[in-house]
Amino acid sequence: MTTAKSAPSVAPPARIDLNDVAGLIARMRSGERRAISSVITELERLSEAAPHLLQSLQPHLGHALVVGFTGPPGAGKSTLVNAVIDNLRKSGRTVGVIAVDPSSPISGGAILGDRIRMTAALDDDGVFVRSLASRGYLGGLSPAAVRIIDALDGAGFDIVLLETVGTGQNEIDVAEVADIRIVISAPGLGDDIQAMKSGLLEIADILVVNKGDRPGAEQTMQQLIGALSIRATVADKIPVLKTSALNGEGVAKLVTTIDEIGHRVTLDDAKSRRRRRARYLIARAASDLVATRIKAGGSGALDPLADAVLSGTMTPDAAARRVLES
Amino acid sequence: MTTAKSAPSVAPPARIDLNDVAGLIARMRSGERRAISSVITELERLSEAAPHLLQSLQPHLGHALVVGFTGPPGAGKSTLVNAVIDNLRKSGRTVGVIAVDPSSPISGGAILGDRIRMTAALDDDGVFVRSLASRGYLGGLSPAAVRIIDALDGAGFDIVLLETVGTGQNEIDVAEVADIRIVISAPGLGDDIQAMKSGLLEIADILVVNKGDRPGAEQTMQQLIGALSIRATVADKIPVLKTSALNGEGVAKLVTTIDEIGHRVTLDDAKSRRRRRARYLIARAASDLVATRIKAGGSGALDPLADAVLSGTMTPDAAARRVLES
Repeated sequence: MTTAKSAPSVAPPARIDLNDVAGLIARMRSGERRAISSVITELERLSEAAPHLLQSLQPHLGHALVVGFTGPPGAGKSTLVNAVIDNLRKSGRTVGVIAVDPSSPISGGAILGDRIRMTAALDDDGVFVRSLASRGYLGGLSPAAVRIIDALDGAGFDIVLLETVGTGQNEIDVAEVADIRIVISAPGLGDDIQAMKSGLLEIADILVVNKGDRPGAEQTMQQLIGALSIRATVADKIPVLKTSALNGEGVAKLVTTIDEIGHRVTLDDAKSRRRRRARYLIARAASDLVATRIKAGGSGALDPLADAVLSGTMTPDAAARRVLES
Repeated sequence: MTTAKSAPSVAPPARIDLNDVAGLIARMRSGERRAISSVITELERLSEAAPHLLQSLQPHLGHALVVGFTGPPGAGKSTLVNAVIDNLRKSGRTVGVIAVDPSSPISGGAILGDRIRMTAALDDDGVFVRSLASRGYLGGLSPAAVRIIDALDGAGFDIVLLETVGTGQNEIDVAEVADIRIVISAPGLGDDIQAMKSGLLEIADILVVNKGDRPGAEQTMQQLIGALSIRATVADKIPVLKTSALNGEGVAKLVTTIDEIGHRVTLDDAKSRRRRRARYLIARAASDLVATRIKAGGSGALDPLADAVLSGTMTPDAAARRVLES
């Protein structure tokens, strides 16, 4: 990440045999877990093997549906994702999971550990879980996520679940990168859940009230439905579902709903979906570059514009346009 | 907001007497609540009165300390902010509060209603609370927040508390705009609180474990301290405090800590603090413009770069630099 920012990056050396890329891809597609791991690692590192691997993967891409799960702490995301995995497996679908874990530089992936203990996935060749460090609270999703999606897609998984702890830029990124966005809430998270409603509406394809067996679940449902009804254009499109991940209630219905929406999504050109993800990564990187340049470089030169904004004679938008033109 | 984006904006007409700006500012500074409200409204609307008001406010700016409160849903932010207000009032300080409320376009400010019912602030001339709609989950803090800070500062409030529901861009913005950033967590928010640690570290000046009377509070404290210790450069600087807003425990210590840090902050030039806020607003507006242009305009022209990113031959950063140069 630092390398890429400071200079035209030199790709790190591959840890795989560059003469056996085709063989590695073949082993990955036959379900060999070590091969899947190796491919993901090379793509995550953006090593010198990455372009070769991605080229070999090209013919196999565009099959998997990418489903993002997000929501506030305490909504029970991990438990629900596990229940969804179990349900998908029972219907014979294979599942790749990317768990975006902002704590992993510190905890060494404690969350992923919990995940694996909770699910039967460890003994199931139809499930592959990868934990991915985020670039932190402000940095958002690592661009590697998009390449790992390609790896899991290319390996032949039917569905890729992208789960993020609902905090900061991560959540926004996951919403942009996924084909279907599921926003999870739960009763009893306090007043703030009320305040999130308008935000939830902006990014959700499906709203889920998890912990549906708890008191207040019905009320939370009604609040969400009420909030949706005000935005009439989206009201009839966004399903609001109640689940209880612990006892499995509502999970089958959630998967059916994902399938229904997924059926529409996958009619889109796979290439255009992948390009949309790449455009988002480029836009985000460009935004970061611009913001960094403005905040760091020549604060003195910006002072007249800053003062104009402070004095109310110029909007930040107008000042920004002036900066970008210069 | 839309106007400002689509054209060189024409300021909306003032709802105050433009010949009595000095009188209005004088009444505001003498504590007349209707005058404070009027000034804030004009600044929020960025009406034709705004430049005149801000000019008249100039001599009075730079006194107030801006303290941001943020954290995940369920951490008890509102209750803690109320307890802090009460404590500040007991020591004779006056308090302005900006409650950033992403739901207000929908709920009409239900949260603020709760706030006012919970606190004695309604009958207290030393407290002024203003609810501010956010630009939504993805849009972040309204630039009006910075002008409202000036209004409350200019009205003579000693401290301005800026509280946001911890979700999306809002939280990031508040962290940038405040002089002191307080991040609130609580025990029992699930595994995710663990995952937020690295994020919390990035923005916090003070970490608070609220609901300190609940089981697990000590463990949450120790986890935060442990996480801090890994980042040795910041470990000795960031206090970790336990509060129980409901029974008032730890609140006095929190206010003392705010004062200690505030003493250092206010030694900085007030002008430079205000300019930093304006620079942030400009940087954010520029980022948004760039991202919007990339995602909307000429997706075809971007396809070669998008494909290079997808094929692993180019990083998003390199592609972004190429776009910005063209």
